[in-house]
Amino acid sequence: MQNEENRSIPAVGDAYSSFFTLHSAFPMTTDAQILTALRAANDGGVSGAQLAEQLGISRAAVWARIEELRSLGYDIEASPHLGYRLVSAPDLLHADDLLARLGKTKIVGRDIRVFQETSSTNDVAEKLARDGVKEGVVVFAESQTCGRGRLGRKWTSPGKRGLWFSVLLRPAVRPQEATRLTIASVTALARAIRLQTGVVPEIKWPNDILLRGKKVAGILTEMGAETDRVKHVVLGMGVDVNQAAGDFPPELRKIATSLKIESGETVDRPALAAVIMRELDRDYARACSPKFAELADEWEAQCVTLGRNVTIHIGDRTVAGRAESLDDDGALLVRTQHGRLERITGGDVILEK
Amino acid sequence: MQNEENRSIPAVGDAYSSFFTLHSAFPMTTDAQILTALRAANDGGVSGAQLAEQLGISRAAVWARIEELRSLGYDIEASPHLGYRLVSAPDLLHADDLLARLGKTKIVGRDIRVFQETSSTNDVAEKLARDGVKEGVVVFAESQTCGRGRLGRKWTSPGKRGLWFSVLLRPAVRPQEATRLTIASVTALARAIRLQTGVVPEIKWPNDILLRGKKVAGILTEMGAETDRVKHVVLGMGVDVNQAAGDFPPELRKIATSLKIESGETVDRPALAAVIMRELDRDYARACSPKFAELADEWEAQCVTLGRNVTIHIGDRTVAGRAESLDDDGALLVRTQHGRLERITGGDVILEK
Repeated sequence: MQNEENRSIPAVGDAYSSFFTLHSAFPMTTDAQILTALRAANDGGVSGAQLAEQLGISRAAVWARIEELRSLGYDIEASPHLGYRLVSAPDLLHADDLLARLGKTKIVGRDIRVFQETSSTNDVAEKLARDGVKEGVVVFAESQTCGRGRLGRKWTSPGKRGLWFSVLLRPAVRPQEATRLTIASVTALARAIRLQTGVVPEIKWPNDILLRGKKVAGILTEMGAETDRVKHVVLGMGVDVNQAAGDFPPELRKIATSLKIESGETVDRPALAAVIMRELDRDYARACSPKFAELADEWEAQCVTLGRNVTIHIGDRTVAGRAESLDDDGALLVRTQHGRLERITGGDVILEK
Repeated sequence: MQNEENRSIPAVGDAYSSFFTLHSAFPMTTDAQILTALRAANDGGVSGAQLAEQLGISRAAVWARIEELRSLGYDIEASPHLGYRLVSAPDLLHADDLLARLGKTKIVGRDIRVFQETSSTNDVAEKLARDGVKEGVVVFAESQTCGRGRLGRKWTSPGKRGLWFSVLLRPAVRPQEATRLTIASVTALARAIRLQTGVVPEIKWPNDILLRGKKVAGILTEMGAETDRVKHVVLGMGVDVNQAAGDFPPELRKIATSLKIESGETVDRPALAAVIMRELDRDYARACSPKFAELADEWEAQCVTLGRNVTIHIGDRTVAGRAESLDDDGALLVRTQHGRLERITGGDVILEK
């Protein structure tokens, strides 16, 4: 039955998605090695002979791979003196290129799979989890037909405007500690956005990233668990990158924004994706260690929820009070009007004025 | 992709499994209605004319269905005076017959699917969960090739000797409250065993049922969740019913037993299955309501863990102390040698002498 499922996954997208799926970047493919070498050379260029020797293939084979990359939109110059030189890369997610940009990570991104279109990258990662795929696999989609936010809400994920991806992790934590992974991933994501674009994100507990009060990214943490141990976690991330205001549905324009709108510049999506994976790899290690405290401090420093009066809707229940702090597992501690401290693990948080 | 998956499920078993899968008991099929009528008549019998009228089909069609049931091993007598009379049913799990025996339930067993063989009924139920199937569906298998216990352990499930099944539920609880479902199901299972066989089960926290100190049944609670809400729970149940001592692998003989060994009688598996589903339906409603306290009392009354000195291994950690009580969410409260009260949500419990 598992084989059956594996076969069905490439069928989700079209020919383009199948191409990238077959070329998932684990272990490093020839294309990934070529792109790594070209990027390492910066403006210097690499000769075909050097590449051929490095990769253990013929110069003709190198040329064929370069042609293939060109056909995808990679602008690769060839000159008798400098050899091959990467002038620019296209605005597309390519597993080999993402791996080349990512470099070495411990867990996150050692296996990258890119789909042109899928229902929801969380669904794909969930399937991979049950098929026994190792933790760290990252599933990207250029667009999602059924992207999800928290509590089963729809997430709009238009083609090539943002980053929609999911990371499979297998942390040795209990279900009630899974909030730590949300904290880790939202902190990593905020840091990556700051590093890559210069804008200063705010974090809204538990899973939103805001720019000037508008949502620019969100995280959906899903898990498969027994009652006392997590078997796997799927972190679904959505980042609105290069949308113009008009790309958002009218009902979202007042509450949503993109990195491009806020920074005034088109953002290099694959470069941002690589930085996010690198930061996430680092913070995943911290989330599952005593260093979680450090991470929580970094989270707190950017958090617009703490110190604010909040109203939180949790199913039918409403808690109102002042958001005081995070506890050891990443839960929000809210002091109610009656002076009681409530421990909140989820729900809809409204920041009061 | 969902269709793809649905199609793949019948392929798990063989022709026999496909037959039963196609005849899953939701809504009530002709066979289920015939068996319900035959059972309602007890020794009285029902005429072909009555059945035909009741079901809105021809007498010839009734006869054809009766022949089909006979071919499966149902001993159905036909006499000119009494009509059709059910003399005996075979020792097999048949979705229609399980539904006929079950009668009306609110949620559990409204949809029953039987496989001759599958990897693990929890895996099948998990797939159904993600396909959006309604809660209450019960998946039985005559044998499992990869039956699982807690913490990824193997569960031996030899063909037709026991009951191996999984129930899909969608309770509105938080992940940390999922232990309630384990408490509810183990209590329902213990009650069903007592009602059906007369033996008096003991409960070992959190998920085992013992007879004279040996394990006779266990429950594996798995869930799909966001950090703050459970999306679905799959309760996997394994009951050793009609094994002889020699049917157990040598390493299990000292610690495992069957209902047949303990009661001295062969147990009617489908009848037991129906009673378990009925009791579970009742206790599921209680688990998600303030009546959970009642359920916890019933659980406590049968629990061999409470009041005992225990050693609990939770991953790398060991907690030793006296098991004092359950808390509101079904966690075990253990008073350690140092007087501290530890809240235990899982782990391996060893009962000390």
